[in-house]
Amino acid sequence: MEQLFGMTEYRQRLDQVKKRMEGQGVDVLLISNPSNINYLSGYDAYSFYVVQALIVIKEQDQPIWVGRREDANGAKLTTWLDDDHIYYYTDDYLHSETKHPMDVVADLFKKLNQDRRRIGVEMGSYYCSAIGYETFKSWLPDAEFINTTTLVSNVRMVKSTQELQYMRNAAANAEHAMETGIQSIYEGVSENQVAANIYHAQLSGAEGIDGDYPSIVPLLLSGVKTSSPHLTWDGSLFQGNEIVTLELAGVYKRYHSPLARTIKLGQPTSRERRLADAVYDSINETLDAVKPGITCGEVATVWSETIKKHGYEKYDRLGYSVGLSYPPNWSEHTASIRQGNQTVLQPNMTFHLIPGLWENDCGVEISETFVVTENGCETLANYPRDLIIKESEKTISSQG
Amino acid sequence: MEQLFGMTEYRQRLDQVKKRMEGQGVDVLLISNPSNINYLSGYDAYSFYVVQALIVIKEQDQPIWVGRREDANGAKLTTWLDDDHIYYYTDDYLHSETKHPMDVVADLFKKLNQDRRRIGVEMGSYYCSAIGYETFKSWLPDAEFINTTTLVSNVRMVKSTQELQYMRNAAANAEHAMETGIQSIYEGVSENQVAANIYHAQLSGAEGIDGDYPSIVPLLLSGVKTSSPHLTWDGSLFQGNEIVTLELAGVYKRYHSPLARTIKLGQPTSRERRLADAVYDSINETLDAVKPGITCGEVATVWSETIKKHGYEKYDRLGYSVGLSYPPNWSEHTASIRQGNQTVLQPNMTFHLIPGLWENDCGVEISETFVVTENGCETLANYPRDLIIKESEKTISSQG
Repeated sequence: MEQLFGMTEYRQRLDQVKKRMEGQGVDVLLISNPSNINYLSGYDAYSFYVVQALIVIKEQDQPIWVGRREDANGAKLTTWLDDDHIYYYTDDYLHSETKHPMDVVADLFKKLNQDRRRIGVEMGSYYCSAIGYETFKSWLPDAEFINTTTLVSNVRMVKSTQELQYMRNAAANAEHAMETGIQSIYEGVSENQVAANIYHAQLSGAEGIDGDYPSIVPLLLSGVKTSSPHLTWDGSLFQGNEIVTLELAGVYKRYHSPLARTIKLGQPTSRERRLADAVYDSINETLDAVKPGITCGEVATVWSETIKKHGYEKYDRLGYSVGLSYPPNWSEHTASIRQGNQTVLQPNMTFHLIPGLWENDCGVEISETFVVTENGCETLANYPRDLIIKESEKTISSQG
Repeated sequence: MEQLFGMTEYRQRLDQVKKRMEGQGVDVLLISNPSNINYLSGYDAYSFYVVQALIVIKEQDQPIWVGRREDANGAKLTTWLDDDHIYYYTDDYLHSETKHPMDVVADLFKKLNQDRRRIGVEMGSYYCSAIGYETFKSWLPDAEFINTTTLVSNVRMVKSTQELQYMRNAAANAEHAMETGIQSIYEGVSENQVAANIYHAQLSGAEGIDGDYPSIVPLLLSGVKTSSPHLTWDGSLFQGNEIVTLELAGVYKRYHSPLARTIKLGQPTSRERRLADAVYDSINETLDAVKPGITCGEVATVWSETIKKHGYEKYDRLGYSVGLSYPPNWSEHTASIRQGNQTVLQPNMTFHLIPGLWENDCGVEISETFVVTENGCETLANYPRDLIIKESEKTISSQG
């Protein structure tokens, strides 16, 4: 199968990771975050729900993949690693009361003479369970363990030219999915149906661009659900005069470009218009302020100050670094755009900026995914940014 | 919002969990598996990618929900818990270098005077990370910790009448999604397009039944990918004469009924026919053998012996307990149908039986989700079971 990136790029990534390992005094890295495994090896499969890992040894020029036997062929097909760098455990280690796949991973560390070293573990990864870590540690009494949850993820923050191209393709898929969703929403249609149409658009992709599955389901909120942003859809029907927020991502080869918009079925009330104006104005002002050299915290302050002019006060997190990801989440779990965050923006970093304001059962959320450029930033998708107003089954106005 | 189950059922579930807590000497349970949280409280949202927990204290008649502030409203809307049993942490605990949501959970244990007790932790849950567990433990030096990964999940194995109804609805959705997939696959169509159609069917549901999102993406394997079952689809086109395996689940209110079939585009070769006959015969024999009182290991032996008659030898895991679930997996992670497994089948247990045989690049996989009845078992879906043969764009034969 075709590699997602060239060898030069994989080598550069590995070099950067090794530099950080050196900085943190790490000899060997045990990577369990599937995005980080993909980033360094190219491995891509829906197999992260069982134990799998990539092992980076500072003196060696190729990482080692280890996973379930039936996935080892997939590692041979999708990674750039030599076949003798692919190891596996058998199915009797799965969901067993007496064995654990980390028994095999620990054995491999011994076999490779890595059992007396300083081992970096992604202790905050979804796929590094408490029992997995304890099992691993128990077999390696002479090793030292260091939490390296963000070591590789921090390298991922600055995107290469090709990664940015993937994210632009993802953004085109996001525009397509958003347009499909907005066209699908009208009074009397079920939430399920709209979600089904959006998923269909995400997976088939925009004209000429492959789709891919998103790391989070489309979030489609209306009525009482607006007060809780992660409730999922059901068979209930959209009502006239509802305000609906829709958050989704376009995806291309696992790269995500999220996008959120708010749709009003019918004419907005004055309160809704006021919320929408504040969010619209504040996202524009915030995007205008983004440039290399300022911190994520400073970006958040611009937002809080802009909404203050509109009479609102809010200091919540309003964005995060984004890119390559696997379920259950598309955030990179590194920099957050929030008060006090000291991450300094650099060209080619990519963020999902998602400000929103809520008053009781009524809320407006408008988001953009942007890349930091040499002088400012550029949004990846091109979709009308203001409150989307729909009357009957037709979008009649979407200024922005 | 409407409760998914009546209070009598939630009370029975809680009673059974408390009985097992007593058996294992556990005073308080910290539940992080979202399926287990849903099972005991009704909580349903796509919010499990941040720390959330349900706390069951053996002396108290209501569990406590704790999660992210913006999800607390969802807990009030979807659970049967009183509002004063809903706690939250603020967003500054998310992806922070200095704080962790488990700081707040540990504080809550102190506040509730549960910090000197025997605490059961689901250490094997995807959502109980190594760092989360270490953080929690570090704040509670006087507590004792017990790994209770399967305590609640084991209770979930035997389904209630209403749960079985949900699974039958899920099976109807599985039939609908399978039919949609099979109708969509033909020479020249892209894998992406087929996956998009299947997702659309899963989310919209069969006639009159709500759909829901599956915990695993549809697995659609053809050509070289057949050798690695968890590679996902892309823009490549189906070729004539290909053999394609399709594994998917129908879902209803988070209950899953998985189903797998193999499709041949064109007439099967004699080798393919031989594989298909062995798998078809062996799944039938295995289903015939299922009844209360025998073990999962004995079921696996029936399978191995049946394929032996066809000249094949294989002893891998061929099934697992299934029901309520959230991404990234739909298995309950309790009983496995494999050699030596001592779990005794009881009426109303539900399993996904998924035998398959592969020879180089050619494989056949046929599955059924079944419920153990008083005298045997009953498959939940009703879909032709033999190899599905398609010529041109039309299914011309599917005997079974």
